[in-house]
Order: sequence, then C-alpha cells, then structure tokens
Amino acid sequence: MGNEHKKGPRELCSGGEWIYGRQPVIEALQAQRRKISEVILPPAEKGEAEEISWIRTTAHQNRIIVRTMDRKKLDGLTRGGHHQGVAAKTGGYPYVDFEDILAEVREDENAFVIVLDHLEDPQNVGSILRSACAAGATGVIVPADRSVGVTPAAVRASAGGSEYIKVARVVNIVRAMKQLQEEGMWFTGLDWGKDAKNYTQIDYKGRTGLVVGAEGSGISRLARETCDFIAVLPMIGEIESLNAGVAAAICMYEVLRQRKIS
Amino acid sequence: MGNEHKKGPRELCSGGEWIYGRQPVIEALQAQRRKISEVILPPAEKGEAEEISWIRTTAHQNRIIVRTMDRKKLDGLTRGGHHQGVAAKTGGYPYVDFEDILAEVREDENAFVIVLDHLEDPQNVGSILRSACAAGATGVIVPADRSVGVTPAAVRASAGGSEYIKVARVVNIVRAMKQLQEEGMWFTGLDWGKDAKNYTQIDYKGRTGLVVGAEGSGISRLARETCDFIAVLPMIGEIESLNAGVAAAICMYEVLRQRKIS
Repeated sequence: MGNEHKKGPRELCSGGEWIYGRQPVIEALQAQRRKISEVILPPAEKGEAEEISWIRTTAHQNRIIVRTMDRKKLDGLTRGGHHQGVAAKTGGYPYVDFEDILAEVREDENAFVIVLDHLEDPQNVGSILRSACAAGATGVIVPADRSVGVTPAAVRASAGGSEYIKVARVVNIVRAMKQLQEEGMWFTGLDWGKDAKNYTQIDYKGRTGLVVGAEGSGISRLARETCDFIAVLPMIGEIESLNAGVAAAICMYEVLRQRKIS
Repeated sequence: MGNEHKKGPRELCSGGEWIYGRQPVIEALQAQRRKISEVILPPAEKGEAEEISWIRTTAHQNRIIVRTMDRKKLDGLTRGGHHQGVAAKTGGYPYVDFEDILAEVREDENAFVIVLDHLEDPQNVGSILRSACAAGATGVIVPADRSVGVTPAAVRASAGGSEYIKVARVVNIVRAMKQLQEEGMWFTGLDWGKDAKNYTQIDYKGRTGLVVGAEGSGISRLARETCDFIAVLPMIGEIESLNAGVAAAICMYEVLRQRKIS
C-alpha cells in the first residue's frame, strides 16, 4: 500500500493562509479544527451585525489577535474574494489522512464517500463540500496533484462546510477507490455514455462512493473504469449539462432518499 | 385580473446590455431570442478555441459586427465578470409575459413552474435558471421589484440556460401564484418550520410549482401562506443549510424522479 496516502510532501500541507467571509470564519472558529492566529474585522461599532460581534467575542475568548485592515490591503490578501470585511489567518487546510476515512468506511456499513476527480473550479469544490457536509457524508477524497484543493476560495464557496467535512488528499485516486472497494464500497460515477443508467435506478444502500469528474472533460478513464456503475441525470431542456456541484448534490440527496433519511 | 402581469414599465424592460462568457454568448446566438448587435472576441488566430471560431462564424453569418476590445475596457464593460474575452451587446433580457406561462399551464397538466421569491444573489438566480432549463420546467416567475432579475451576471451563472428557459416578471408573486392555483397548480415552498414535510413525501405529479425563498430570510410570509405544502431537505451534518440554488435543483429533480422521467 505504500505511504502515498499519508500526509504528503510539504508543498501539499500548505502553510499559513487567509480564509475570508463571515460564515467561513465563524465555522472555522466553531469547528476548531485549525489554529487561527489572527482575525481581521471592521472597527467595532454599536449595532454591528450579530455575526461580527460573535466573531469578535469568540476571538477574544480564544486569545486570538483582532485587527482592522485597510480595505484595499484586505482585497489583496483575499485575492479579490468576497470577504465582507472579515478574514482569518490560519494554518493550511486540515486535511485528514486517507487511512482515517478508510478506517471509518470499514466500521460503517452506511459509509458515504465523494471522490472529486480533478475538479478545477473552486466554486464547484466548495459547493460540493457544503452539500457533502449537509448530506452527512463520511468524507471527500481529492487528488493531490493538478486539481484544486480546499483553497480559501473553496472554503468561501462552501460557506464554511469545509471546516466540518473530512477531506483527504491522495496521490492516486484510482488506488484509493480500489482500497475502498476492498472494504465493500460500490462506486457510482456521474458521467455519460452507453453504459450509464438513470441515477435513480442505482442502489445506494450500503457503503457508497460517488465520483464527480472535472467540468468539461468528465471522469478520467481509469477512474471511470474503476466505477461499478455510471449514472446519468436526465436532461430535458436545451442545455447539455447541470453544474457539476448541482449534479453531485442531486445524486447525494438521492442516496439519502433511498436510505429513507429525513 | 388587472394588467400588473403585462410587460411592465420601461425601467423593467431594460435597454441594451452586455452579456459575457463563451457559453452565454453561444447560447444567445443559438437560441435567437434576443437581438445581438455586436460581439467582442479576441483577435482571430490559427488554432483558436472551437467555441471562439463558432461564435466568429455565426456572428458573420448573421451580419453581426465583430470587434476586439482592450482587456481593461472589457473588464469594465462586464463589471469584473468572468468574460473569457467574449461579450455580446444585446437588447435587455427577453422576459415573456406571465400570461404566456399561464396559458401553457392551462394546457399542460404536467406543467412545472419555479417561483423565485426575492432572491438576491445573481449566482443563485443563474444556477436555478440553468437547472430549471435542464429539468425541462415550463417557466420561472420572478418579482419585478427589489430582487435580482436576469442580469448579465445571472446569464453568466446560468451558462446560457437563461436563453432558453421562459422567465416572467410579475409585480405581485402571490397574485401570480393564486392565478396558477386556479389552473390546478399545487405549490410547494422550500422552507423550514413545524408544517414542513420531507421534500420526498410530497406528491409532485400534476401541475407543480416550487417556491424558492431569499438567501437567509426564506420565503416571504404571504407567499408562504399561499403555498399548499412546505418542504424541507434533510440536513445531517453540522451546517444549517444548502445553497439556495442547490436545494432548488434537488427538489426539481425529485419532481422529475416522481414523474419517472429519464
């Protein structure tokens, strides 16, 4: 099995970074999965938004430095992201080890894992993390190369769901899928093709994995061949596809529906 | 019935505007629902992307002016939107009359309408237009006041789905809902509360309307009271809500599932 699923080389465990936006900062403080060394807030004022004062109070209680910052500087720090005047300096995203997810799958016969096969858009990555968190997924697997990891833009797009859901980075997603299959997981890839079934006609009871491919190019060949089923969503109108994050969420909630979770 | 659902005052029928992004411009050219007077493209070059040459050829065939534009100017024109070097000057968004949707609902016993109750984020509006188009909805109803209409940012976020789906602006969405109910439509509001049922336990056969509320504040009181059912999506994880566009799409595809559309 080697150690390719262990926490990777240093460039993967990114150093400090700034996350931004009210909700992401609130969830990071609440989840307490990563160290926050500094929080940027607007100057304190009477009648400020409840979320802002919650962040201020919680930061003080946790002895975290609270500062104000010039808007332009904050724009630069967050690379033009929608920061709402709020940011937090944190360690890199707290990925979990793949072995942790593997161990959970072994123990939980209803384990539910999402594999992101080289998605490129942090909006889609964030959207899927949020939906996976809401749907109570066991974890999310992302490849350690090329594609987008859980960047501050993805954290923002997840509305802080990233701070709760477990995400593991692996060097080889096909190998990770095979290891999960050995634990009894069945994988469904969201894709097109002659072999594709309507997504509602696949049985998602038991250990279930969903594979979401890259925008445009879809699931890579080897990952697709490793899938047990290929699922397609019906498209009635004139456009060819749903947004990747939306398609993934529809399928996640079909899993919940079949399991009669309410 | 009054005329408040007729095409509204001039400020609602917005004048010329610039839409942007490859897919939106392709779909606008393809759908031919609105006049395009001018297209901005990168300078022609050998080996340019297929989408760019398709736009170039189609514009020429339709005698539409094709120009290049300085990147900074284009950034300004599209207000910092993700334009990919492509934009088109068009008439305002081609809203349909509410009466057109009403007439379709009268004739189609499987009519399926989405009501957007004062959504504020053009990303969510665009996302819902794209999903509604993919799900083959009859049309979308938006209020003519306050909230976001089908702006160029919403067109971008819809990946061009806006150019096919029928959208009507109405002064009073509650009155519009009541008129649709008179034609036999049953409305389900996506919301929370003691009266909410799991969204899979509502019957979406027959004429169906879905009401999506604003991010944060939810469905407004009168619209909520007009709904026949309130539906909630299960939330298993630590975060409180799904993205509004994602929740709407999950519910749209539950409608399709119940109707056995594949």
